[in-house]
Amino acid sequence: MRIDIITCLPQLLDSFFAASILKRAQDKELVSVNVHDLRDYTTYKHKQVDDYAFGGGAGMVLMIEPIANCIRSLQKDRTYDEIIYVTPDGERLNQRIANRLSLKENLLILCGHYKGVDERVREHFVTQEISIGDYVLSGGELAAAVISDSVIRLIPGVLSDETSALTDSFQDDMLAPPIYTRPADFEGWVVPEVLLSGHEAKINDWRYEQALQRTRTRRPDLLNE
Amino acid sequence: MRIDIITCLPQLLDSFFAASILKRAQDKELVSVNVHDLRDYTTYKHKQVDDYAFGGGAGMVLMIEPIANCIRSLQKDRTYDEIIYVTPDGERLNQRIANRLSLKENLLILCGHYKGVDERVREHFVTQEISIGDYVLSGGELAAAVISDSVIRLIPGVLSDETSALTDSFQDDMLAPPIYTRPADFEGWVVPEVLLSGHEAKINDWRYEQALQRTRTRRPDLLNE
Repeated sequence: MRIDIITCLPQLLDSFFAASILKRAQDKELVSVNVHDLRDYTTYKHKQVDDYAFGGGAGMVLMIEPIANCIRSLQKDRTYDEIIYVTPDGERLNQRIANRLSLKENLLILCGHYKGVDERVREHFVTQEISIGDYVLSGGELAAAVISDSVIRLIPGVLSDETSALTDSFQDDMLAPPIYTRPADFEGWVVPEVLLSGHEAKINDWRYEQALQRTRTRRPDLLNE
Repeated sequence: MRIDIITCLPQLLDSFFAASILKRAQDKELVSVNVHDLRDYTTYKHKQVDDYAFGGGAGMVLMIEPIANCIRSLQKDRTYDEIIYVTPDGERLNQRIANRLSLKENLLILCGHYKGVDERVREHFVTQEISIGDYVLSGGELAAAVISDSVIRLIPGVLSDETSALTDSFQDDMLAPPIYTRPADFEGWVVPEVLLSGHEAKINDWRYEQALQRTRTRRPDLLNE
């Protein structure tokens, strides 16, 4: 898989893709993440990429021209399965969407910043609009990183043990059960006995019951879908 | 406001707090963000902070001991309004929660990684569990950055124009209207005429109608709350 990210603040994303699972996925050549600086594609003076909104009001808007130049330049080399714009009014990201995106070859993610991008970019270039949640961020960079992380970790071979992602919350519409590790007793707070029993069937039953109970208490909506 | 973040991968967060709005907020001393490396608080050999789950299964679990040491050490210097654990089964972050957190003095955010933290940490130390959305990430670091960003930008003085955050999506339970900037005509794609009219009342009416229509189409649930 190849992911291209267009942003006017590439430095925000530097450390994130240079560490941990995302770095290992790139080292193993399972994915290639390429961050593009919008300022390299503007023809305006002083590398300007944003301007005031028509009609007035606070906040700057990213201009269509540099975005169009950047997308068209990238499209010369490949066809994108999706051109994603990250925006709070997009479709809300969930595990199902992440699963679906993890099967694609080429994704392009456009980050807004300040008040967002000129609406004409959304009408004429973007094929999918995704929100990571019902809150507003300074820019789309973190959201692009969130989408990339949620997708990349699902690519076979990225996690060291493939069963690891399958037992996560949401993969089966249930929350994950509680987990414990050493020590069995920490200042009198002890681990549930069944987990120390070595009885695999009983442990699986306990985990299923706990996951069900937690889902009922915290997210009954998941069970009704 | 002061935000402390506990993580076993501090390098993931380096560039994010060193740029853009979050850097300026720190330069202005409106907020101080401090990232703490969990490995500095372990008494295990080789700076170990995680171990296998009791009862078996894939994935590593962060141990209670280094987390307890770190939290207690930080609590010696201040009282935290909330000790937040970022987890997909927590309460879902929204703009209302971000607004509420932006009024606090001291926040502590604990990042899970791998399969998460020992359940006893959640029972005995954590006061609030927050999810940024219904998807699974490699770790809590990005989620901690998302929470911090959504909260910090609401602190008065952080955004250059205070009205800027008030016109964002969700602040009034509506999505934001479309925005446009120069040029008025890009390859024949033109900006709606009303925005160029200079007629403030008509522009405000148009924006309200557009926001309402977009909210009805994309997120009718927001209007029914």
